[in-house]
Amino acid sequence: MDSSNRTVSFAAPRGFGTTLKSDLKETFFPDDPFKQFENQKPLGKVKKGLQYLVPICEWLPKYNLKTFQYDVLAGITITSLAIPQGISYAKLGQLPPIVGLYSSFVPPIIYAIFGDSKYLAVGTVAACSLLIAEIIGEVASPKTEPALYLHLVFTATFVTGIMQTLLGVLRLGILVDFLSHSTITGFMGGTAVIICLQQLKGMLGLKNFTTKTDVVNVLRSVFEHRKEWRWESAVVGIIFLIFLQFTRWLRDRKPKLFWVSAMSPLVVVVSGCLFAYFAHAQDHGIPIVGDLKRGINPPSIQFLNFDRKYFPQIVKAGAITGLIALAEGIAIGRSFGIMRNENVDGNKEMIAYGLMNIVGSFTSCYLTTGPFSKTAVNYNAGAKTPMSNAVMAVFMALVLLFLAPLFSYTPLVALSAIIMSAMLGLIKYEEAIELFKVDKFDFVVCMAAFLGVAFISMDMGLGLSVVLGLVRALLYVARPGTCKLGRLPDSVLYRDIEQYPDAARNSGIIVLQIGSPIYFANGNYVRERVLRWVRDEQSHLETTGDELQHVVLELSGVVTIDMTGLETLKEINKTLRANDVKLGIINPRLKVMEKMITSHFIDKLGKENVYLSIEEAIENCKFLTSKPKKTTSESGDSSKGAEDASDDASQQV
Amino acid sequence: MDSSNRTVSFAAPRGFGTTLKSDLKETFFPDDPFKQFENQKPLGKVKKGLQYLVPICEWLPKYNLKTFQYDVLAGITITSLAIPQGISYAKLGQLPPIVGLYSSFVPPIIYAIFGDSKYLAVGTVAACSLLIAEIIGEVASPKTEPALYLHLVFTATFVTGIMQTLLGVLRLGILVDFLSHSTITGFMGGTAVIICLQQLKGMLGLKNFTTKTDVVNVLRSVFEHRKEWRWESAVVGIIFLIFLQFTRWLRDRKPKLFWVSAMSPLVVVVSGCLFAYFAHAQDHGIPIVGDLKRGINPPSIQFLNFDRKYFPQIVKAGAITGLIALAEGIAIGRSFGIMRNENVDGNKEMIAYGLMNIVGSFTSCYLTTGPFSKTAVNYNAGAKTPMSNAVMAVFMALVLLFLAPLFSYTPLVALSAIIMSAMLGLIKYEEAIELFKVDKFDFVVCMAAFLGVAFISMDMGLGLSVVLGLVRALLYVARPGTCKLGRLPDSVLYRDIEQYPDAARNSGIIVLQIGSPIYFANGNYVRERVLRWVRDEQSHLETTGDELQHVVLELSGVVTIDMTGLETLKEINKTLRANDVKLGIINPRLKVMEKMITSHFIDKLGKENVYLSIEEAIENCKFLTSKPKKTTSESGDSSKGAEDASDDASQQV
Repeated sequence: MDSSNRTVSFAAPRGFGTTLKSDLKETFFPDDPFKQFENQKPLGKVKKGLQYLVPICEWLPKYNLKTFQYDVLAGITITSLAIPQGISYAKLGQLPPIVGLYSSFVPPIIYAIFGDSKYLAVGTVAACSLLIAEIIGEVASPKTEPALYLHLVFTATFVTGIMQTLLGVLRLGILVDFLSHSTITGFMGGTAVIICLQQLKGMLGLKNFTTKTDVVNVLRSVFEHRKEWRWESAVVGIIFLIFLQFTRWLRDRKPKLFWVSAMSPLVVVVSGCLFAYFAHAQDHGIPIVGDLKRGINPPSIQFLNFDRKYFPQIVKAGAITGLIALAEGIAIGRSFGIMRNENVDGNKEMIAYGLMNIVGSFTSCYLTTGPFSKTAVNYNAGAKTPMSNAVMAVFMALVLLFLAPLFSYTPLVALSAIIMSAMLGLIKYEEAIELFKVDKFDFVVCMAAFLGVAFISMDMGLGLSVVLGLVRALLYVARPGTCKLGRLPDSVLYRDIEQYPDAARNSGIIVLQIGSPIYFANGNYVRERVLRWVRDEQSHLETTGDELQHVVLELSGVVTIDMTGLETLKEINKTLRANDVKLGIINPRLKVMEKMITSHFIDKLGKENVYLSIEEAIENCKFLTSKPKKTTSESGDSSKGAEDASDDASQQV
Repeated sequence: MDSSNRTVSFAAPRGFGTTLKSDLKETFFPDDPFKQFENQKPLGKVKKGLQYLVPICEWLPKYNLKTFQYDVLAGITITSLAIPQGISYAKLGQLPPIVGLYSSFVPPIIYAIFGDSKYLAVGTVAACSLLIAEIIGEVASPKTEPALYLHLVFTATFVTGIMQTLLGVLRLGILVDFLSHSTITGFMGGTAVIICLQQLKGMLGLKNFTTKTDVVNVLRSVFEHRKEWRWESAVVGIIFLIFLQFTRWLRDRKPKLFWVSAMSPLVVVVSGCLFAYFAHAQDHGIPIVGDLKRGINPPSIQFLNFDRKYFPQIVKAGAITGLIALAEGIAIGRSFGIMRNENVDGNKEMIAYGLMNIVGSFTSCYLTTGPFSKTAVNYNAGAKTPMSNAVMAVFMALVLLFLAPLFSYTPLVALSAIIMSAMLGLIKYEEAIELFKVDKFDFVVCMAAFLGVAFISMDMGLGLSVVLGLVRALLYVARPGTCKLGRLPDSVLYRDIEQYPDAARNSGIIVLQIGSPIYFANGNYVRERVLRWVRDEQSHLETTGDELQHVVLELSGVVTIDMTGLETLKEINKTLRANDVKLGIINPRLKVMEKMITSHFIDKLGKENVYLSIEEAIENCKFLTSKPKKTTSESGDSSKGAEDASDDASQQV
């Protein structure tokens, strides 16, 4: 082994343009979407570009009848889910039930054109529906000003659409990354709990109810209105719930029977309608949905309301629900993509979501995304392309045109049972337990979202959890892991002595490994920590009469460095020199080396003290130690250190 | 060289208590202050503890007459600076000038007892004085309600003291680290510019002036009041300014003459007083300070005002000025400590600053810290211990008791000249140029503070700069540097092929190095990036007919990992397997390995795919590649891979 005839690359730093371009590319285009345009003729470029921007151009030309059969079957299955879910979630968002059905007609068509995921099924989601009601409800009451409330919801959907499209176009998917999986898990769990509790209103047939969503207020409201409880409603509700949970249990035991569980909400709605119609249920304390007009989506673009009085709240609702919808939808699209080993482009998805919400807000729809339950059903039903969404849209149009009034008999208790059953599946306690086992801080982030949503409010819970996640991210950078390396017995490998306790110390030399960038947030820490290693080593060596002569920093893990970081290294160098200890560095990476050269740190340190590998550093240090101390000039000859090491290496090997 | 008889350590994860303790220690006690208490008897522990908490207990017992002589000389020198600076900065803070003198009496005594830096000289600072005036001025006018304004300033000082002490006790010095050096440089420069412009009021003898601080408003105000301009005032002011700048130039050329520059402000004040007294200057358009009462600090604890109406603004003023004062003072204490190779404990300093401000707020003082100019003079004058601060306090008491009324003749124009001269030294354009050269983003952070302070307001400028710094910190973690490693010719070292372009590819194997932790903020990025490397390599290999069979991730730089990070690795593993590519990992660090074991990732990956070094991984992969593909069981025998590699290694060597 002869590594020492190689020297460290002291190549002149690249130009600003080059580094800026490479940084921007890593930040915004990590997936390198332009690659496919290389070596294409102009016409080919246009074609590729169109296929990139409008995915349907890519898959439709290859589409055939056989795939269509699969997609039709999947489309019918998800339509059966879309009807009850649409009505239920619209009720949850304090909206007219028909808006829920409208939202399963236009947006799926837009997604079928622009969507990148093959399995995603478009629809409304419970958490965002409730969140919209909570935030918009603060400025307009859905009970006393239903028209204003509805128009503000359309406007919030429009804002969501614009924001999602912009995020996609500006390639800011990075913002969605800051909603971590733990946050989403906790948020969904907390939302599921409060939504379940809210359903007590429908289950018990209550007329008056709190508009607050937290556990304490909802439970208090339920018990304050004890006198309104109707046993008839509760009995029907519990029967429906048991039926739904049974089909879910069946699906878990026999995955092939997924369609039983997928159809069950429609079965509940239809049997509820029949029961309500023939038994005159509303006369016996079982209220029904009522009033569903025939006809497809009327235009709503004229209702968009940008009044200054409401706008801040609309933006808040649009932004928060938009981000949650993106995080949920993209995560779901990706996870089903990974199952089939297909890639889903987050930025394209964002644009597709944004377009479908913009168009949706013009056509009486509210916020849609890719809900987990519907997507799972779509996947299991054999969907092959986004065509299944288009099929759903067609069937939904037929329902709207001919069947809508039939659903006006749906008992509210049936909707409550459907929502409760869906929400019970979203409380993923096993995941929380897993988080607790593997990563306590992730567990805290998750529980902050869960408890915050359950006991304070949905946006506070989410905010708390995100802030905790950011604090953690900042702590990671503020406290980079440093460790001391020792040589593993019978090898030339140097590893963390805490991890490999039998690793040997090198007398008179300590090798410290620094992870993460060195910069303003951790400069002081790095200096303190390195000097503490040095003090510890010195006090340890005192007992043996030895002396510490070399400190070598292994910088392979230091991805980048800023001005403060460079100052830190200069200070460390100064302090060590004052103590007659020499500083060396090993394998600085490209960006780091460039800045070290520009800022003249390399000149101060001396090129002979920059090594390519730990072995080289150790051998060179041992060589220097064994001889009387040399006085090396500040701007030493670059090849000198390397030559010394080479001599030494040849003696050793 | 035989590294392959070593296997990776799969030791059982440490307990939660152990890791929590070690994490907390790294976060809050990186300097390990408890070390000195080890192996001490109870009495020794008390003594050491007292010395740790009250540094005077450490140095006073060893104090001798010779050191005292040095400290007295330094104390006299800084007193001569404290008088003009105290009066000037109090004027800048819209406070009675005598408060500036009070602030150089009590706080230095407290610092002499608790301070940890040997060279720091305590005093008021220009930037914070102006910032206090700006923030408190919003709720109480210093002109129409001077008493209320004064009391609110004392209360803000009290809040600052409490906050600083708490930060020190809770060891949250980490907060100060987020005010980066670039931010401070820009902030100081911007402040210097606006303070200089403000002095045009004093220089031109204006009576009416804007209360705003930004460049545009101040310049407009100066020209709007053209008719008030007094040439007598301007002439005197320019003479003083030239004198002060000349002594500064002299000091820069002959550092031994530092005392000329140190004394010059006092010379300006005294000659200004004499001139004003004998020439009846105020009758000729040169206003004087007026009314300085004899006597030391009166108590002010009874004036602290916690009225709800003002409290939010007081907390804002106290917190922002407190943080800036800490950042400036600690940085200055540290940099002079480093010159003499002495360590300054940031947390102790914070407690000392906090105590001096709390006691100061009780005794008619306002915010004090360690100003750069005064500390530099103190250091050059030969100060050896914080005793020089006590000496200054004694002389200041004498001034307050006997000489204060004499200074009431100080012309305002003399103060303006002193402030301007001091501020001109704070505009460090060379540093900004250096930042531009070395790190463009640092330059942007610096200019954001500079331009924000100059053209918007001081707190907005500071806030903008800090937020930019944080965004950068988050981008660092969201986009960890990944690179592809190649083998350097004639060596066994694997290095970044972008940095060392002659590094060789390994046919059928790619080695990727990941820096920084893998977690929620970068999980998606890491997956995209790794899969992009794989795609690129595959399309490159297609041309040669070769096949990519192994992807190995070098994880030495990955300090920690969270649940999302683990999921990312699992997904990468899944995707690669589906493409018939095997994933391996190299040298996971202690924390990472623990979480990989707990989350069963290691079981999924197979222990035989975890390597200790790149060489081992490459050799093992080559060995596997050269044979027909083996079907390895998921929970494969851990030693097998290592044995294979060992065989292969012995064939090669």
